[in-house]
Amino acid sequence: MKVYMIVAYPNHNGLSYNAFESARQEFERARHEVRVTDLYAEGFDPVLRFDDEHKRRDLQFDDSTAPYRDNITWADHLVFAFPIWWGGMPAILKGFVDRVFSKGFAYDYKGVMPIGHLTGKTAWIITTHDTPAFYVKLFEQDYGKVLDRQVLKFCGIKTIRRTTLPYTRHTTAAQREQWLASIPAIAKGQLPVQP
Amino acid sequence: MKVYMIVAYPNHNGLSYNAFESARQEFERARHEVRVTDLYAEGFDPVLRFDDEHKRRDLQFDDSTAPYRDNITWADHLVFAFPIWWGGMPAILKGFVDRVFSKGFAYDYKGVMPIGHLTGKTAWIITTHDTPAFYVKLFEQDYGKVLDRQVLKFCGIKTIRRTTLPYTRHTTAAQREQWLASIPAIAKGQLPVQP
Repeated sequence: MKVYMIVAYPNHNGLSYNAFESARQEFERARHEVRVTDLYAEGFDPVLRFDDEHKRRDLQFDDSTAPYRDNITWADHLVFAFPIWWGGMPAILKGFVDRVFSKGFAYDYKGVMPIGHLTGKTAWIITTHDTPAFYVKLFEQDYGKVLDRQVLKFCGIKTIRRTTLPYTRHTTAAQREQWLASIPAIAKGQLPVQP
Repeated sequence: MKVYMIVAYPNHNGLSYNAFESARQEFERARHEVRVTDLYAEGFDPVLRFDDEHKRRDLQFDDSTAPYRDNITWADHLVFAFPIWWGGMPAILKGFVDRVFSKGFAYDYKGVMPIGHLTGKTAWIITTHDTPAFYVKLFEQDYGKVLDRQVLKFCGIKTIRRTTLPYTRHTTAAQREQWLASIPAIAKGQLPVQP
């Protein structure tokens, strides 16, 4: 399988980053092909700009984001690893979505109906956050649901797994270790064995 | 009244920007004090960075965001004007929230309970988007709700009005003009007359 991993965490000692790294190692151990975009490490610019001369509709041809589009086209499976900040994606990842999942590349409209161009691909969303799990479920907007349903699904990508460590700050070191230790098994379980 | 307006739109000919500008003119006409942060015009960097040496808990003392904190402290009323992209805030505005609404400045925890530090202030959220209104209401996550409930309310700020032009691409020029023409009256109506 071809796996494209996108990670958005500034501190390589952080839990979100460790979860990404653990999954990456498992994918490579299992001899899947892996490509990685570490948005912080490469200094990704998340600001989508356009004006009367540089139209938003030409975003699909933007040279500076072409490598990301190529990776998405290449991949069978996308992995997103990030912390939930203020209910949603860190700005650097939100801007990756704003700039890379462009009309014409990721979707088009047929009349008023959206047509996803990225069908046949799957996704795994790995998040950490600081809100009690029951509270998120009952009351909170987003927390990864926007990326799952309103970005990926919109473009034809099926999120087959979401892995969350809730209420991170109030977990024990042992709980965090246990969660982290579960990541390789999840990485293994969700990908079919290569023929 | 002291009004702090934050606008996030790259093209000054766009509808979100026009709505902001229309509200700004009405506030100034009514002799309210107005401060503006045009995130695109000033090249705001939305990427929140921290590591083992530069702790996230010190964000409240970050010199580079001090002017924004000062404006928020100064203001009675905050206005946010932006387009909904992929269900939420453009990355440049999400990063403004990530970097400026810091713990210690905007809120703290008392045990597990959040305590907002910005009580007594009100907000107006002005958005445009391309999804049918009934669909947003029934099915969609966010669309301004995260900023309203999970950011501003969390910090003690009461959103007294949300003004949205839905399904922008499928409206007529006349409908957009009518919506835009309603902005000054809303700006006037929501602020009490100065004594």
